[in-house]
Amino acid sequence: MKFAIIGTGAIGGYYGAMLCKANQEVHFLLNSDFEHVKENGLLVDSDLHGKIEISEVNAHQKASNMPVCDIVFVCLKSMQNEKLLPQILPSITDENSIIILIQNGLGVEEDVATLFPNLQIAGCVAFIASNKIGNGHIHHLEHGSLKIGGHSVKSMSQLESVAKILNEAKIPTEVFPTLDTIRWQKLIWNMAFNGTTVILNTTTDKILAIPETREMVRTLMTETILGAQACGIDLSLDLVEQTIRYTDEMQPYKPSMKLDYDNHRPMEIKYIYQKPIERAAAAGFEMTKMKVIYQQLSFIQAHL
Amino acid sequence: MKFAIIGTGAIGGYYGAMLCKANQEVHFLLNSDFEHVKENGLLVDSDLHGKIEISEVNAHQKASNMPVCDIVFVCLKSMQNEKLLPQILPSITDENSIIILIQNGLGVEEDVATLFPNLQIAGCVAFIASNKIGNGHIHHLEHGSLKIGGHSVKSMSQLESVAKILNEAKIPTEVFPTLDTIRWQKLIWNMAFNGTTVILNTTTDKILAIPETREMVRTLMTETILGAQACGIDLSLDLVEQTIRYTDEMQPYKPSMKLDYDNHRPMEIKYIYQKPIERAAAAGFEMTKMKVIYQQLSFIQAHL
Repeated sequence: MKFAIIGTGAIGGYYGAMLCKANQEVHFLLNSDFEHVKENGLLVDSDLHGKIEISEVNAHQKASNMPVCDIVFVCLKSMQNEKLLPQILPSITDENSIIILIQNGLGVEEDVATLFPNLQIAGCVAFIASNKIGNGHIHHLEHGSLKIGGHSVKSMSQLESVAKILNEAKIPTEVFPTLDTIRWQKLIWNMAFNGTTVILNTTTDKILAIPETREMVRTLMTETILGAQACGIDLSLDLVEQTIRYTDEMQPYKPSMKLDYDNHRPMEIKYIYQKPIERAAAAGFEMTKMKVIYQQLSFIQAHL
Repeated sequence: MKFAIIGTGAIGGYYGAMLCKANQEVHFLLNSDFEHVKENGLLVDSDLHGKIEISEVNAHQKASNMPVCDIVFVCLKSMQNEKLLPQILPSITDENSIIILIQNGLGVEEDVATLFPNLQIAGCVAFIASNKIGNGHIHHLEHGSLKIGGHSVKSMSQLESVAKILNEAKIPTEVFPTLDTIRWQKLIWNMAFNGTTVILNTTTDKILAIPETREMVRTLMTETILGAQACGIDLSLDLVEQTIRYTDEMQPYKPSMKLDYDNHRPMEIKYIYQKPIERAAAAGFEMTKMKVIYQQLSFIQAHL
């Protein structure tokens, strides 16, 4: 089985390296890191698994030089999909390939499926804290599990075989018929922290340390769950305190949107905020407090 | 009639200078500006009235050197009241003095009346755009009217006489039995712009220029009016568009809270956000979006 990793950052770099370490054939599409990785390989400093060095990497600068792959992990930022995927996917996929989008937010699969109606698309949520800290160099802080859900996949058994390989590669993976529940579940954390760490220019621990913003997080998480419930997703309000406790126990963390902001890159506002707010509204629930966060982020994005 | 100006900044400096120009006896209590004003006087560059120079100023560094005054304008930041007024008011007031608080937000009169149960207290809202741009130097951009409302004043006719003097000094002044309506009316602007210009580190014009934050302003203003209505204040939702149009026509402006933030001074969060939100909640209306703004400001204040 051939794997492709599109976007070798904090996420793609970690999962790709774990697959290499398990002796899978992995092809990496690289951009700015290409020369470095071709020459020096990939390095993951994992607080969980120790140092993972992949010295011989199938590094590619162009998709046209890559083989057709069975499994294509798309680890780009979601707002790059529309521009980059049409340049990449046609040359590395056929009708048997499965495209797995390891991306944040709600509605990415639909938009990619619209671009590629004949490809098999799956969504994936990564529960991981990792950062890219240099060329071909990733710092993996903790966690690392994946939840994969079908979108336009012909047979679920194919996803199950992928999950088996991933689990063997020490990537704890579960497969679900659809990702809606999991995507909303992850939004509980993402909608509470991604935007607010940008707006307040801070980290998760500091937000939780001030009583007023701790209460704000509680309120935002509650609103996300009520939004999910309006969309028919069965999430319990108990998740509010559970998610806060989980974040209390995490190391001080900059969510991906904060890293994008710090590096003057566009932020994933569309899939993390706009789409969920729109879905909830279409289902009759107005996420009014989250809308304030969305509006503030739109301002910040416009001035980035 | 003797006037005292406590706090000779953008507000106190302007109104004090206007009274001096009208040949009223005005005593200024100054802090950091004392030496400068004693020597050089006060200068107001008014876009409305031209240059106003008051060369001979009754400048005082200590309240104990000031005479008892009939009218004491308190132009301090509201969070200084509790600490500073007990050091100032006893020596410059008697039972006939009227203390007029030209301060922002809701609930300042109650708190000062609790400190001085035997003094006559009135509240005042200034509709003015002015900035202190140097020692004893104020730039008056536009407007300048006052609305005064009784709180613990024995006879309204005394306030009417003050208003007469102020009007003669080209300070358009109206007197009201209470200030609640006017304070809430000013909060429509203040709650929409004071906090958001701090949170987004910007000016009023830029907030209104981005569709999402223009909509946010609309939403916040609507919430303030609904909060006021819950408190029995008769404000119309038409004020939302009126206030936005008025702000569109203003010059790009940094609200007082943004100036405090830029100068690393404490912000008037208590009277501009916390008290109105509490009052509305006590009356049965939760200002949920404004609470997000309040929570974000509390975070920023804690890290100032």
